[in-house]
Amino acid sequence: MSENNTIGIVAPQTAHFNEPLTLKSGAALSQFDLVYETYGTLNADKSNAVLICHALSGTHHVAGKYSEKDKYPGWWDNLVGPNKPLDTNKFFVIGVNNLGGCHGSSGPVSTNPATGKPWGSEFPIVTVEDWVNSQARLLDQLGITQLAAVIGGSLGGMQALQWTIAYPDRVRHALVIASAPNLTAQNMAFNEVARQAIITDPEFHGGDYYEHGVVPRRGLRIARMLGHITYLSDDAMGEKFGRKLKDSIKYSFDVEFEMESYLRYQGDKFAGEFDANTYLRMTRALDYYDPALAYGGDLSKTLSQVKAKFLVLSFTSDWRFSPARSREIVKALLDNERTVSYAEVTAAHGHDAFLMPDEHYHAILRTYLSNIEVGGNHAK
Amino acid sequence: MSENNTIGIVAPQTAHFNEPLTLKSGAALSQFDLVYETYGTLNADKSNAVLICHALSGTHHVAGKYSEKDKYPGWWDNLVGPNKPLDTNKFFVIGVNNLGGCHGSSGPVSTNPATGKPWGSEFPIVTVEDWVNSQARLLDQLGITQLAAVIGGSLGGMQALQWTIAYPDRVRHALVIASAPNLTAQNMAFNEVARQAIITDPEFHGGDYYEHGVVPRRGLRIARMLGHITYLSDDAMGEKFGRKLKDSIKYSFDVEFEMESYLRYQGDKFAGEFDANTYLRMTRALDYYDPALAYGGDLSKTLSQVKAKFLVLSFTSDWRFSPARSREIVKALLDNERTVSYAEVTAAHGHDAFLMPDEHYHAILRTYLSNIEVGGNHAK
Repeated sequence: MSENNTIGIVAPQTAHFNEPLTLKSGAALSQFDLVYETYGTLNADKSNAVLICHALSGTHHVAGKYSEKDKYPGWWDNLVGPNKPLDTNKFFVIGVNNLGGCHGSSGPVSTNPATGKPWGSEFPIVTVEDWVNSQARLLDQLGITQLAAVIGGSLGGMQALQWTIAYPDRVRHALVIASAPNLTAQNMAFNEVARQAIITDPEFHGGDYYEHGVVPRRGLRIARMLGHITYLSDDAMGEKFGRKLKDSIKYSFDVEFEMESYLRYQGDKFAGEFDANTYLRMTRALDYYDPALAYGGDLSKTLSQVKAKFLVLSFTSDWRFSPARSREIVKALLDNERTVSYAEVTAAHGHDAFLMPDEHYHAILRTYLSNIEVGGNHAK
Repeated sequence: MSENNTIGIVAPQTAHFNEPLTLKSGAALSQFDLVYETYGTLNADKSNAVLICHALSGTHHVAGKYSEKDKYPGWWDNLVGPNKPLDTNKFFVIGVNNLGGCHGSSGPVSTNPATGKPWGSEFPIVTVEDWVNSQARLLDQLGITQLAAVIGGSLGGMQALQWTIAYPDRVRHALVIASAPNLTAQNMAFNEVARQAIITDPEFHGGDYYEHGVVPRRGLRIARMLGHITYLSDDAMGEKFGRKLKDSIKYSFDVEFEMESYLRYQGDKFAGEFDANTYLRMTRALDYYDPALAYGGDLSKTLSQVKAKFLVLSFTSDWRFSPARSREIVKALLDNERTVSYAEVTAAHGHDAFLMPDEHYHAILRTYLSNIEVGGNHAK
């Protein structure tokens, strides 16, 4: 990517909400904060807003850098910027950190107003439905009645789908990428192992580790290592590392193969940055999401009130959210005679492919997004 | 299975070896024990011996029970017994616990003769090659020059393959089931996460937990939970558990889904029975096994001295040792114009299928084994 299509220096903002939010669990947050970033300019009739929903470990920092010295830009910078597929010359793009997160929005690490101490284990379990409801509050505050589009990959794609179910009149287009209408048992099983690694870490302290001055690093590290296996395809891992040795075989439990070095590095890095309580909540939100449950498992009935147009996109080598799961969404939309485009992109990278600037993938997004009509100065 | 084809009550035996065994790592065991069981009768010309090699958590206790009160028989009892596919009326069957194990053969839990204390971290890392060499010593002690067959699934299949490479004149048939000529990067990655869960458990104490009176239960539990995900196929997990809830949703990190209950049960059970140091060594043996490495990665060259006839068998839903990996072995054997039968069995159970009494699978084994010629009274 050339420098002249980056969004440049960006800054996060915080929205405060004083109206209580009742969660799906029945618990309520009497007040909450959402941290968010915006890129581009909201047009006169406010018809060009695009909401980006993040996945398990994502944040509101989607594009740009916080300073010239910043080593890395936001997590979807290859997609979002002037003249990029999600073009900030046309769209007003919003990235938001979800409730329960650890990057500024209200979550386990933030202060419980009732006690003046970190929420820790007391922070309620939040769901995809709760996130979408809280994001709708943010749009209210920004004066945005209807989104031109909502877009997300993986867990983010579940939020995009939920937007069309919960707020059919507030979203014109939904881009659901590398996602599924619910998790398979295998996916939930990986989440459970990750959570158990965290919860049984002696430094977890039932989720109230902040007051002990420790973090359950070991558990979070294992969770992340496991995650990385499922984000890559077997083939991609084979191509990237294969059976390559770091050195000659030492017959030990130290790093012998390059892949081990990669996993340990990723695990250590994540354990130093991310909050374990947030990780637990993000995986639970994934587990629980199953909009068809209220309709006897019938996804077609579930989507009967949906009004948005859809782009559903999957990757051939994604074994965590396989193309078959995306096709379930497509079928349910077609059963309701909704407008849906579907692309199954040939990509070797597995689930991670949704974050990568594959040419074919980005061309599909660019074409779809360029055909979305917006009013005001930004109209085509 | 009817009662009249069980092998009945069995008892383990211990073979002691005083000649030092030099391991692939360069380390040596000055003396060692192998615990084993036999079923059936060795015939006059000793031509009817079949060696069963176990997988990661297997043992020498393949068939029968230790007492009438025993709840469960040996781990491959559905295969081995009078009139069963591996017929003990015809064959003399040997099950052996591998070196480094925790069921009686010399391993980390047994006493280091040099110190009088448990070996713990000092027990050397053993390889598939070492196991086969130690098994050959056992055959020497039993006076068996040549095996009618060697059989194993998964890691056991690797040993069967290695027998044909290391001792081409000592094995007439090799039955290599749900196995591979080496692990893929993804398989090794799962092993690494399992090992790291154990090694970073504060109760691991560098492998010398015996003297602290603790065991790294948490780590071993996580390792086993993860293992169980990879033993089942996504489909089998879906069929067995799907998204079934234990009860109504509680919005907590306790057991919500039936699959979670299953994984925790399996993890807890294993952590109470198995030795963590053994688990580390078994997974390392899996990682290291790569007989073609010495031949520049050319498996056909590797198998050029092999004399045994082969039955190679894989299961369609096995994503840990996929049929493609079995076909690599078949191709290399065919390149050398060896006699090889290959079957790809349609089975939903994933890698675990090799332990199950699938009718089609057992019929293939029965036919193949019934065609093996043995001398003496047991000749066909």
